[in-house]
Amino acid sequence: MKWISDSEILIVGLGLIGGSYARGLKRLGYKVYAISHSQSTIDYALEEGIIDKGSISVEPEMVKNADAVIFGLYPETFKEWIANYQQYFKPGIYITDVTGVKGSVVYDIQKILREDVEFIAAHPMAGKEVYGVRNSDDRIFLNANYIVTPTDKNTEAAIEWCKSLGKLLGFKRVSVLSPEEHDETIGFVSQLTHCIAVSLMNCTDNHNLVDYTGDSFRDLTRIARINEKMWSELFLMNKEQLLKQMDIFMEQFGRLKGYLEDENVEGMSEMMRTSTERRAWFDKK
Amino acid sequence: MKWISDSEILIVGLGLIGGSYARGLKRLGYKVYAISHSQSTIDYALEEGIIDKGSISVEPEMVKNADAVIFGLYPETFKEWIANYQQYFKPGIYITDVTGVKGSVVYDIQKILREDVEFIAAHPMAGKEVYGVRNSDDRIFLNANYIVTPTDKNTEAAIEWCKSLGKLLGFKRVSVLSPEEHDETIGFVSQLTHCIAVSLMNCTDNHNLVDYTGDSFRDLTRIARINEKMWSELFLMNKEQLLKQMDIFMEQFGRLKGYLEDENVEGMSEMMRTSTERRAWFDKK
Repeated sequence: MKWISDSEILIVGLGLIGGSYARGLKRLGYKVYAISHSQSTIDYALEEGIIDKGSISVEPEMVKNADAVIFGLYPETFKEWIANYQQYFKPGIYITDVTGVKGSVVYDIQKILREDVEFIAAHPMAGKEVYGVRNSDDRIFLNANYIVTPTDKNTEAAIEWCKSLGKLLGFKRVSVLSPEEHDETIGFVSQLTHCIAVSLMNCTDNHNLVDYTGDSFRDLTRIARINEKMWSELFLMNKEQLLKQMDIFMEQFGRLKGYLEDENVEGMSEMMRTSTERRAWFDKK
Repeated sequence: MKWISDSEILIVGLGLIGGSYARGLKRLGYKVYAISHSQSTIDYALEEGIIDKGSISVEPEMVKNADAVIFGLYPETFKEWIANYQQYFKPGIYITDVTGVKGSVVYDIQKILREDVEFIAAHPMAGKEVYGVRNSDDRIFLNANYIVTPTDKNTEAAIEWCKSLGKLLGFKRVSVLSPEEHDETIGFVSQLTHCIAVSLMNCTDNHNLVDYTGDSFRDLTRIARINEKMWSELFLMNKEQLLKQMDIFMEQFGRLKGYLEDENVEGMSEMMRTSTERRAWFDKK
């Protein structure tokens, strides 16, 4: 399938990200269908004109007509969906997803998937601290990264198709990593940071702190507003990598603490020089 | 001394914060003098019109004319300055500071200070990741907190004077804490967060991460660009409180890690619900 303007695209799971995909694809002129478990979600999306058709049940016709299917479901639900409904897919199509963990999803899906349909996984690294289609907005992609995570089973054509999707949606940077590289990276830059923010907010129930809080604390805890169902599932699915990243962080945090205990100014300063130098990399791009 | 418009105010130490005070006070119509160790700082401040007079040495006349003195020096330098030059102060004036740690500074200064001059300490909780008078900007105060930290030695009049200074400079919230309450609060909301950001940046030297970094990581490490001289001094001066806060954080981080190891979804979810609920407090104000 190519990205031609009369393609019909089905989005399964119309939350914040699925809804934002729908908005972007509609804006580009595609026909967009959606399946959601919630009627009010479908109603809202229809009223807003971000989908052409929607259903709360899996209508075989809707699936059969789709030239591409994008899954915005929780990982476990995603696997169940494929097992239950893949017989309806049009032969030869590509399907993709938006799941935040790859190793434990991609291989499982590819294993159970029909041979005449190709699953090419992707992770749009965009989000907000709010949820649902009502908060969807395809502008969240503009400054964000999009990672395609192919396996040996994927064809070059599917990889290119999936990269095109990221480019069409306006992502700032589209790149390719193996599922394993992806999970290690995400364990560090995304999951570990959420663990830190959650832990920080659990340290005290002192309401008065709000009065004395500067930007630092606000910045470090913005992501402490978290969807506990989704994130605990994501943490579990990347358990080994995340535990490894947590250990690495605790080692560095413990090193800094040790320097402070010993009043080792040179040790603390060296860590601060390193952090200053490395943080500058992130300001350049 | 009252805040009358022909007051002459001396700022000792013309860095980011001292320079921002100078800009704000000049804008309000005060005569502003400055002492800095750097001639180029003085030259720049004069050219920009943010001070009326400046010197790289401690000119007795400049100190004698000042109706108020604001210290923007590192804590140790501040103490030395008082020991060396306090004989020049005009009798009866108030002096204040911008130091980020209080317990280990305020009592020492008050102990050595002349009886006819009153030191009322304050902490303007504003900053940037860049330094020096060239980056100064009094608009950084507009959304920030200002904390006055009196001791038993301070008079009501001096406390009110110091609060007025914060209000004049445009701080969003002006409040009063004891030096001990201040240091505990700051150990948590400011110093601990800087320790986390520094540790996080020390975890890996992988340049490629920049390509896969979302807002979470950027937010959590913004403050990893850090002035190592100033911050290691601040950490040491608040050593006991900061170590206590680091322990509390490690306990919570370890708790989350334990839940993940045990695949205890309910434990993780509960911490996430707590963090979500508490983070909302910080969005209201």
